[in-house]
Amino acid sequence: MVSDFGETLHHMAAPVVGKSARTRARLVAATRAAIRARGTFTAADVAARAEVVPATFYAHFASRGDALAAAFAATLDEVVDLVGAHLDPARLDPARPDRGAPAVLAAFVDALVDFFAREARVFRAALGDLATNPGVRATYRAHEESAMAHLVPFVAAVRGTGPDDPAVVPVARALLVAGQGLDNPLLFTGEHSDAERAVLVAGLCALVTADPRTPPSPRRPPGRPA
Amino acid sequence: MVSDFGETLHHMAAPVVGKSARTRARLVAATRAAIRARGTFTAADVAARAEVVPATFYAHFASRGDALAAAFAATLDEVVDLVGAHLDPARLDPARPDRGAPAVLAAFVDALVDFFAREARVFRAALGDLATNPGVRATYRAHEESAMAHLVPFVAAVRGTGPDDPAVVPVARALLVAGQGLDNPLLFTGEHSDAERAVLVAGLCALVTADPRTPPSPRRPPGRPA
Repeated sequence: MVSDFGETLHHMAAPVVGKSARTRARLVAATRAAIRARGTFTAADVAARAEVVPATFYAHFASRGDALAAAFAATLDEVVDLVGAHLDPARLDPARPDRGAPAVLAAFVDALVDFFAREARVFRAALGDLATNPGVRATYRAHEESAMAHLVPFVAAVRGTGPDDPAVVPVARALLVAGQGLDNPLLFTGEHSDAERAVLVAGLCALVTADPRTPPSPRRPPGRPA
Repeated sequence: MVSDFGETLHHMAAPVVGKSARTRARLVAATRAAIRARGTFTAADVAARAEVVPATFYAHFASRGDALAAAFAATLDEVVDLVGAHLDPARLDPARPDRGAPAVLAAFVDALVDFFAREARVFRAALGDLATNPGVRATYRAHEESAMAHLVPFVAAVRGTGPDDPAVVPVARALLVAGQGLDNPLLFTGEHSDAERAVLVAGLCALVTADPRTPPSPRRPPGRPA
């Protein structure tokens, strides 16, 4: 499995330069645009949007699945950039309330929900192929690792700890899971109230500062409704 | 949009009885089994698994997309049952640590992750069609409402409040979003450590008890890594 991913990544990372690279980038952008518009795509549709002949599509992608993996990779590049820009330890300043962890996480939630809403169809199409498309799986795993490279130092910074804090990696991975959970149609429809957003941010703050060895009790004792 | 959903639901809810209903249930089960096995399905494949002639598939489903929506509906029925069984206010007992909100939520996380892992391909296939399949959208929305009917009384019970607590509905909706976030391949591969699970449970506990008007500060002041 791992070597399968490795080979696929190697293939995807093969250097492509000059005019050929520009054409490929145009085809990837056209694939994303087609999925955004219709939820799916054909090679002919993408070639027409990229203003190339259909044979050019197959000169750059072995299959439709290859084009989908490339479109997903380009989309995930942008997610990782967004994570890096928002969850940057340099953004945190304990002396300023607008730069505490809750404010930074709130801005991150807004930006990520907006991004997922815009790219929802690309995510659905790619994740729908996850089980059957090794290229989609490989790019998904690789981008998770890239996101972790941002999340680990951010979590350590919020916790005020260093590499000796054994909670940092599990907390960063839980934050990775929670962040992906924001790719949810419920959040995209304007039904997403400020109160709901505040609750999600509170949950993320608790998660970032959690001690995995002692799950906290709720703030009030559990009880029955009055 | 709403009337489109309404009509689709009406169509899906049309009464089917006796032998016809049993054949349909067998076709739905065969569709789920085919997707679990291969990530996708054909009408011929499903008919063979259900031991009927291919024409019978089209006697029960107008299209492949209809069968997918029916398979998704059956899967979501089971999720809603799981939510109802785990997040039942009667499970909470403040006098017993093994029946406090953290313990109940931890058992729920385990059960939900197991369920999503087993049904991952059905979810990916259905959510991949969300943008283009009105039947999938309609059943998704309907099951969200059914899940909310369980979540609202559970949240009120954990908070020890009643229908006058304005936080209950936004908190229940945030819990619905967070629960769907557990449908994540990261959690399905045995890489999901106990520490990571404890962090996710801590986040959910904080979310259930959050006050949406005042996002909490992290437990420690934010700072830079040492």
